[in-house]
Amino acid sequence: MSKYWSAIVGSLTPYVPGEQPKPGSLVKLNTNENPYPPSPAVLRAIAQAADQRLRLYSDPHSEDLRAAIARHHSVSPAQAFVGNGSDEVLAHTFLGLLKHDAPLLFPDVTYSFYPVYCKLFGIPYQPVALDDSFSLRVDDYLRPCGGVIFPNPNAPTGRLLPLTEVARLIKGLPDVPVVVDEAYIDFGGESAIPLVADHPNLLVIHTLSKSRALAGLRVGFAIGQADLIEGLNRVKNSFNSYPLDRLAQAGAQAALEDTDYLKRNCEAIIATRERMSRALSDLGFNVLPSAANFVFAHHPQRDAGELASALRARDFVVRHFRAPRIEQFLRISVGTEAQTDALIDALRGILSSPSE
Amino acid sequence: MSKYWSAIVGSLTPYVPGEQPKPGSLVKLNTNENPYPPSPAVLRAIAQAADQRLRLYSDPHSEDLRAAIARHHSVSPAQAFVGNGSDEVLAHTFLGLLKHDAPLLFPDVTYSFYPVYCKLFGIPYQPVALDDSFSLRVDDYLRPCGGVIFPNPNAPTGRLLPLTEVARLIKGLPDVPVVVDEAYIDFGGESAIPLVADHPNLLVIHTLSKSRALAGLRVGFAIGQADLIEGLNRVKNSFNSYPLDRLAQAGAQAALEDTDYLKRNCEAIIATRERMSRALSDLGFNVLPSAANFVFAHHPQRDAGELASALRARDFVVRHFRAPRIEQFLRISVGTEAQTDALIDALRGILSSPSE
Repeated sequence: MSKYWSAIVGSLTPYVPGEQPKPGSLVKLNTNENPYPPSPAVLRAIAQAADQRLRLYSDPHSEDLRAAIARHHSVSPAQAFVGNGSDEVLAHTFLGLLKHDAPLLFPDVTYSFYPVYCKLFGIPYQPVALDDSFSLRVDDYLRPCGGVIFPNPNAPTGRLLPLTEVARLIKGLPDVPVVVDEAYIDFGGESAIPLVADHPNLLVIHTLSKSRALAGLRVGFAIGQADLIEGLNRVKNSFNSYPLDRLAQAGAQAALEDTDYLKRNCEAIIATRERMSRALSDLGFNVLPSAANFVFAHHPQRDAGELASALRARDFVVRHFRAPRIEQFLRISVGTEAQTDALIDALRGILSSPSE
Repeated sequence: MSKYWSAIVGSLTPYVPGEQPKPGSLVKLNTNENPYPPSPAVLRAIAQAADQRLRLYSDPHSEDLRAAIARHHSVSPAQAFVGNGSDEVLAHTFLGLLKHDAPLLFPDVTYSFYPVYCKLFGIPYQPVALDDSFSLRVDDYLRPCGGVIFPNPNAPTGRLLPLTEVARLIKGLPDVPVVVDEAYIDFGGESAIPLVADHPNLLVIHTLSKSRALAGLRVGFAIGQADLIEGLNRVKNSFNSYPLDRLAQAGAQAALEDTDYLKRNCEAIIATRERMSRALSDLGFNVLPSAANFVFAHHPQRDAGELASALRARDFVVRHFRAPRIEQFLRISVGTEAQTDALIDALRGILSSPSE
């Protein structure tokens, strides 16, 4: 605590991202990165943009990128907002659309950045318990509130809420914003973006960090009706006019345009996920059904923290949250086929010996 | 206004950045970009980073870049904070260090983003009038306040406050944060960074957009004692963990390390600025003494708005602010030697004919 800090700073509990170790021999399955490279078209576009034009500001409105997003998702450019990763899009959304007198609702087990944003911006909120199977019950949200946000599929559980249920939630709360954070939707879910046309209260947020294999480029976007997007732009233009550099805009546009690559990449990851889920079940894990590029699993006989440590000793990094209800779970990103085989072998070895 | 917006959004007056026209025949002298390309080392570093590693998150702490900043400025890495352009660094600074009950002070004629941040974050502020020559009078700031921020050299005036006066301000307000926004310091000023060691209330902010010719890469940084930096990190890590992508971190590090290139680039721009200032004076302009990569000038016989329009008709874009005290001024970025010659020729032609 410093006397020079604004009063709010002392009360913050900043988000702690998953460990980003320096490259080496570690098998990194802790932050849900894509195990495959981005589309070659992305690298070409970046190479073409990396010249003396870097002396000039990037387009503050990301017009070309927003046009590509609009084409890909069959919306208008005025319905698209881009930001520096979906985390920045979320930050502007919390401040611009989700700060109301009534509490914001989100699941008790969810992306742990949500309560952090609420504290930063002074937003009242109320966690809503997932049911015993970690499923979201729409009826629990149909009550007076300032808004709703939830990831679909949820993180870190991987569980998908069917689109019919998403629609029921949006229709049931027509007077407050409902934000669906679809960071992982391409790995087996059905996007709510087509619902935007008929629902002025719906905002859908995507990222290029997961299915587009571009976590290192920092691009996310939101889709909603034009007046929601205008609210986001007013906040963004009061914060940072140029959040996306020239290289990120060029690379992201190329990524959006390579639909075939996206499809093949996601199919490969889904196939590996299903195989990994079965193998983990065979080892005695209870594995939640996942529609994401990770699985969430616990072993009835082994402490999750000890399992994470034992894996780390064997050079596998997975995510273990010391949080209520999930402290006996591991969240394991879907890697390549070879990484998955190696992980299963390592777990088999760990489980065949007594607790370490 | 939408019923879904947070209450604050309707009252925002977002910043309006200078026009960013698509490349063409325009001579762009309106947003103080560097007329010369970035260091070749920057482009090499970006090319080396633009590979399949983009699938992985960037370093959330920008360790390598912060180490390069620390080496260049003879501080420790714990005294360096980086962000997505100095605008994002400023945004976190306003929320994290400048929000107090007593009003924040800044010049009445200054970077027009400052009052925008104040409105976004609910920070009380009081503009302090520059004197008739647009100089900052330190004594006017030595009074009860929540903090002080000012650019040095100031924008859009270009006027430099001597380091002895900066030091007097910092020493005179030991109990509140004093932020010196040195976006243009490399073009002829003396940085306050060496004062950080003895002054826990001082934060100095730099950008790579101007003297490093990297406006399109979006990198800025702040230097202050470790507890000020920790305050900024707490806010940043409650907002967006990964604001700098892999390419920006790599390019910025290379830029910081190429000191020779920086020196030559700034010397060239300073020489052109002095020549342009004399030529404008010869055309009858009153030109403020500038320590930046732009000049601020007005013509006693010609309306500034009309001059800007006449220049635009001749494909020159300069900045004209319709704001109190400065509506008869033009802010003209220093271009290449050839661009400057062409600009002076165009102005000579405009001034030799009757008002348009």
